[in-house]
Amino acid sequence: MIYEPINLQRKFALFDEQWTPKVIAEMNDYQFKIVKLEGDFIWHDHKDTDETFIVIEGDLRIDFRDGAVHIGPGEMFVVPRAVEHKPFAAGEVKLLLIEPRGVANTGHEGGERTAQNDVRI
Amino acid sequence: MIYEPINLQRKFALFDEQWTPKVIAEMNDYQFKIVKLEGDFIWHDHKDTDETFIVIEGDLRIDFRDGAVHIGPGEMFVVPRAVEHKPFAAGEVKLLLIEPRGVANTGHEGGERTAQNDVRI
Repeated sequence: MIYEPINLQRKFALFDEQWTPKVIAEMNDYQFKIVKLEGDFIWHDHKDTDETFIVIEGDLRIDFRDGAVHIGPGEMFVVPRAVEHKPFAAGEVKLLLIEPRGVANTGHEGGERTAQNDVRI
Repeated sequence: MIYEPINLQRKFALFDEQWTPKVIAEMNDYQFKIVKLEGDFIWHDHKDTDETFIVIEGDLRIDFRDGAVHIGPGEMFVVPRAVEHKPFAAGEVKLLLIEPRGVANTGHEGGERTAQNDVRI
């Protein structure tokens, strides 16, 4: 049996588009997704789940209604469930997201920024 | 409100001991644990859950009964539930583990290599 590791940079090299999470692995009913971000996103929350951000490259800011967190390479942050947040990246950020299967990137907000789920690379 | 990112290298700098996972974050009922590994571990499995390994530094080998996977920095691997495995590191490895709360490092094997759970740093 051949077992292969998942190389994050090799996965990031497979696509250029931003704000479109790609599933690279699953653990039980959770998904590991990579995404490239740049610019501003929309305010949203996830009513039923926490959401984990691990920054691989670049500097991510996540705004909250009462503050913000800056997350750099090698850093992570868990956004608690039901807390409104808005990601922002001045330059491109390469991000690893971890959350349960079925979570939409825009939470319950919907709209044109909603990405397709379960896109695997 | 002050929001602080979790810096993995700063967390790793807080301890020297090996084979003792430390919880650095929680997401729903899952935990993010960091651990330093070197040398050989024991054969074990986790009957009820997958287990995710993300290598931060060093080279980790995980042996299976029918093969092995080599995981380097920036690479990850999900060991499926109930699959026997044995981690090995020729030099020290800094590892991020993700699994549900309550999972023992030795699975159901127990013994002297079993680490205390829920140690937070």
